[in-house]
Amino acid sequence: MIERRKPIPIGEAVQKIMEYQLQGLTEYVSINESFGRFLSEDLMATSDVPHFDRAPYDGFAVRSIDTREASQSNSVEFEVIDHLGAGMVSPKVVGQNQAVRIMTGAMMPEGTDAVVMFEVAKDYEKNESPYMSIKRSFNKGDNVSFAGEDAKEGEVLVKKGTLINPGIQAMLATFGYKDVPVAKKPVVGLFATGTELLEVDESLVPGKIRNSNSHMIAAQIERVGGIVQYFGKLPDEFDTCFDAVKDALTKVDLLITTGGVSVGDFDYLPAIYKKLGAEVFFNKVAMRPGSVTTVAGYKGKILFGLSGNPSACYVGFELFARPIIRRQLFSKKPHLRKEKAVLEVDFPKANPFTRFVRSSTFIEDGRLKATPSGLDKSNIIMSLAGANSLMILPGGTRGFSAGDDVDVLLLEDQVGSEWPW
Amino acid sequence: MIERRKPIPIGEAVQKIMEYQLQGLTEYVSINESFGRFLSEDLMATSDVPHFDRAPYDGFAVRSIDTREASQSNSVEFEVIDHLGAGMVSPKVVGQNQAVRIMTGAMMPEGTDAVVMFEVAKDYEKNESPYMSIKRSFNKGDNVSFAGEDAKEGEVLVKKGTLINPGIQAMLATFGYKDVPVAKKPVVGLFATGTELLEVDESLVPGKIRNSNSHMIAAQIERVGGIVQYFGKLPDEFDTCFDAVKDALTKVDLLITTGGVSVGDFDYLPAIYKKLGAEVFFNKVAMRPGSVTTVAGYKGKILFGLSGNPSACYVGFELFARPIIRRQLFSKKPHLRKEKAVLEVDFPKANPFTRFVRSSTFIEDGRLKATPSGLDKSNIIMSLAGANSLMILPGGTRGFSAGDDVDVLLLEDQVGSEWPW
Repeated sequence: MIERRKPIPIGEAVQKIMEYQLQGLTEYVSINESFGRFLSEDLMATSDVPHFDRAPYDGFAVRSIDTREASQSNSVEFEVIDHLGAGMVSPKVVGQNQAVRIMTGAMMPEGTDAVVMFEVAKDYEKNESPYMSIKRSFNKGDNVSFAGEDAKEGEVLVKKGTLINPGIQAMLATFGYKDVPVAKKPVVGLFATGTELLEVDESLVPGKIRNSNSHMIAAQIERVGGIVQYFGKLPDEFDTCFDAVKDALTKVDLLITTGGVSVGDFDYLPAIYKKLGAEVFFNKVAMRPGSVTTVAGYKGKILFGLSGNPSACYVGFELFARPIIRRQLFSKKPHLRKEKAVLEVDFPKANPFTRFVRSSTFIEDGRLKATPSGLDKSNIIMSLAGANSLMILPGGTRGFSAGDDVDVLLLEDQVGSEWPW
Repeated sequence: MIERRKPIPIGEAVQKIMEYQLQGLTEYVSINESFGRFLSEDLMATSDVPHFDRAPYDGFAVRSIDTREASQSNSVEFEVIDHLGAGMVSPKVVGQNQAVRIMTGAMMPEGTDAVVMFEVAKDYEKNESPYMSIKRSFNKGDNVSFAGEDAKEGEVLVKKGTLINPGIQAMLATFGYKDVPVAKKPVVGLFATGTELLEVDESLVPGKIRNSNSHMIAAQIERVGGIVQYFGKLPDEFDTCFDAVKDALTKVDLLITTGGVSVGDFDYLPAIYKKLGAEVFFNKVAMRPGSVTTVAGYKGKILFGLSGNPSACYVGFELFARPIIRRQLFSKKPHLRKEKAVLEVDFPKANPFTRFVRSSTFIEDGRLKATPSGLDKSNIIMSLAGANSLMILPGGTRGFSAGDDVDVLLLEDQVGSEWPW
């Protein structure tokens, strides 16, 4: 007898997972290892930036009051009493008609309030001492970067949940974050099921294929920001299988299995969920591919029973596992980023269910366009390689034509969506 | 005296670097570590996929010839002689009016050439043996995935220089690539210069700031696919400084210094290049920020003298260092990806030189739009954190208005451009 399952809408399926309480955790890593991690706390300015008034250009620091009379017809002379590189601090107080030669980034000497750029000064020596003269006046603050101009102490500059990019690395360094609070990477366990599966280093034999799903999902876990713990192939025998799953659950935050979740004669996963006493959120979703995806909660962990079919497996991970992993990374936009694109080709197939078509999305003349990436049979992994997106073709439609607007989910993007459903 | 330098156009500067011969190298890494690396050889199908005829659905494998007489009014009966899960191979040869119960992915038994899906079959027992009957005919090949349907042995499926994504991981596994030929990551040395620089764990003192450029550039090196070797701050004394640079050059593929490259009074780098006998490709570029970038070749290595100014440093790396690193990773599109976007706000500043404005580029209703990310002073690192792109505002223009088309270079993208200049 074939078991009848009731498919639920995609948005509802995702919501059931997101409602399950999983908390993100903080760990501290050296700033040298924080690139690409997610901030688990707000990044705060621990000082003003700059934290002293400084010269933004090479030139001469002066008292603007002394420049008042300078003009094309009236050159004003200054004695150059010191010479500062960035990082140096002058011990001198600058008096009337005195100046300090100053390099970009150096602290303004006491008494000065403007910088005369080299280009508008004439420098020379008199009695073996350096002098310079100018033929224009300056206002207080001209060519000075003031303390706090870029950031004020105490200001929140980057929100928690943000992916650390090179610019944020610079900010972390500026504010002395030697150790950076980042989201602990969730550990995602991975089992493959299937008598037909060979390991990557085994030779092909009739009827068997190499296990590609585990390597694919492992990469998807890494891409989203998790750590993979691969437990190998589940044994064929039910009790051993059950023990392996139960034991693995003690070692991971989430557990993914590929295959064995359907209603085929050798699909053990449903029975395992049952014996565990796991709360099955759903075991069928109104979508193609991936309709037989099963997700269950068990003692604060989530079990993802993804289809053994490569496309369904891929899509199931991105729709259902990605967002909960990203939420553990404190992301405010944990779901795949959804954008509108123009369909480049006809897609005449009718869709009783919402269909996710592996696609290549690209930009042409400032416009997002999308085209299916290769033959779209659900057992074809080839088209996954070229796919950077999933085109969403809503259910209940009779096909689409080139030029139609379609929604696409971007796979390689790090921005995300709040709630695309 | 201020040295006069002759600025060269950006495209010419980039070209001079790209013409310098640097070869990419191959190394083999385990498939478990190949995600995110760049293929250094074409990925070839080492077998047909599938490599045997198989059932794409659960059902009964039959000889289509036996179904010819089946119709709504004429039910045809089959004896079910075997039961196959994926990975199993039937030892039996299927004869007249015989069938094999078969699961998705299993090899077609000898003699069969079509699969009857469960939904259209009626199964029952007779004399304690399994039987099934159908009321429609099937053609040879119906519901069969044929060997070689997805890929043919010997076919090149992914070109060298491609970034390995989860789909490619699946293909590598399918074809038995236990060890994957990938581009060796170039080792990029990094020196900071500047008396004003404190390390990240040092307390602020007047006139000094923490070294943020090294952490920023280190992240940029990682993002593009290189390995960072940080050598710390260059000493202030010329000879020690020269020895440090010369020694570092023996340990890295490329060497980046930040600061000390301008015409300021404490800028040693030009003298170091001279004493080394390095071939200076250029020491000034017609652009803002980053005009004082200096790049030189020396014994098959390249020295990048980036500005100490954070914005200039950032832009200098992305325009000049990124493409040569990506070329060592065998990328066919080593430069930042250039796309057209609609400017969201007025940018009234006149541009005597081509200006790179740190920007946030986003998609709205399928259209690329861009807006400067915060105040755009060249010493402000804050706006770098929010920037995902550099807007190119060509030199010789009087400013831009909201709604104008502008070119943007995408910083977080992995696609790249062949030659954007």
